[in-house]
Amino acid sequence: MSLDRKVIEPELKLLGSGSAFQAQLLAMLQGSQFFGDFPAAEIETLTKYVQAYSVAPGTVIFRESDRGGFMCLVIEGGAEIFKQDAKYGSKRIGQIEPGKTIGEMALVDGEPRSATCICPQQSTLVMLTREQFVRIIREHPALSVNILLKIVTMMSRRLRQTSGQLVDYLQD
Amino acid sequence: MSLDRKVIEPELKLLGSGSAFQAQLLAMLQGSQFFGDFPAAEIETLTKYVQAYSVAPGTVIFRESDRGGFMCLVIEGGAEIFKQDAKYGSKRIGQIEPGKTIGEMALVDGEPRSATCICPQQSTLVMLTREQFVRIIREHPALSVNILLKIVTMMSRRLRQTSGQLVDYLQD
Repeated sequence: MSLDRKVIEPELKLLGSGSAFQAQLLAMLQGSQFFGDFPAAEIETLTKYVQAYSVAPGTVIFRESDRGGFMCLVIEGGAEIFKQDAKYGSKRIGQIEPGKTIGEMALVDGEPRSATCICPQQSTLVMLTREQFVRIIREHPALSVNILLKIVTMMSRRLRQTSGQLVDYLQD
Repeated sequence: MSLDRKVIEPELKLLGSGSAFQAQLLAMLQGSQFFGDFPAAEIETLTKYVQAYSVAPGTVIFRESDRGGFMCLVIEGGAEIFKQDAKYGSKRIGQIEPGKTIGEMALVDGEPRSATCICPQQSTLVMLTREQFVRIIREHPALSVNILLKIVTMMSRRLRQTSGQLVDYLQD
């Protein structure tokens, strides 16, 4: 793909917006592991803050060290996670299936990404940006609490799985 | 200390309650690293949901594998963290100074504690239980969002500090 084609055909194509598209977004969110157990009314509220994109094969969603600003929910296709290794260069360390999320931490701390995320095939992603999450906190605090509880639970499981990690001892 | 004395003199003594004690609690929370940057009105709200205890030297605050239900803020004295080691038995792995918190994760997931926490000297602790946190979520969602954001930020820093940890890749 030449640089010109890339410019003419953006790699992220907005799939739809407005109330006409809302039912489709609702179905996407309800089918996911992250949002699937949220109350129906909250998922409906959430559709007003997220956007769905069609992603061309090979698109880099974010790069290691980027200052991130969004989380993604994979609807169709998939994503792969790569990490730079001092010894071996870029190494594939994980795969994200439809229904799963990626980059949740960026919603909260906006720190540099710890890995690179690429969609190897044609994919559909739903994105929630930090800006929109801040709006949700202000306008729908109960919904933001549920999103945060989900993120904390995932992080806690991750910390507990890692041998020697002590989640009761979070020194800062 | 005999078992009888323990029964007669509880190791955790409630320091005070009600509106008369509220100003003291407010000062304790405002002086802490965890709550110090919360809006003044939120800290005032919080005083209605927490309790302060005087803790006798040698008191076990929680034990590794306990199903936890509270977080603690150390006001005076201090706490020490021990972890069971298959090879060497109980090992001291950390120390909590006044102003710092411990056991934050228990508010969210109520999973077994990953370490044991003991107050070696006479200490003052402020406790927030899971039950009270659930009440805060319902009654003051904006305050619960700030508590959760603080916990996520601490966990994220912890995950990022640990070499090889990938906070953008929280598989569950």
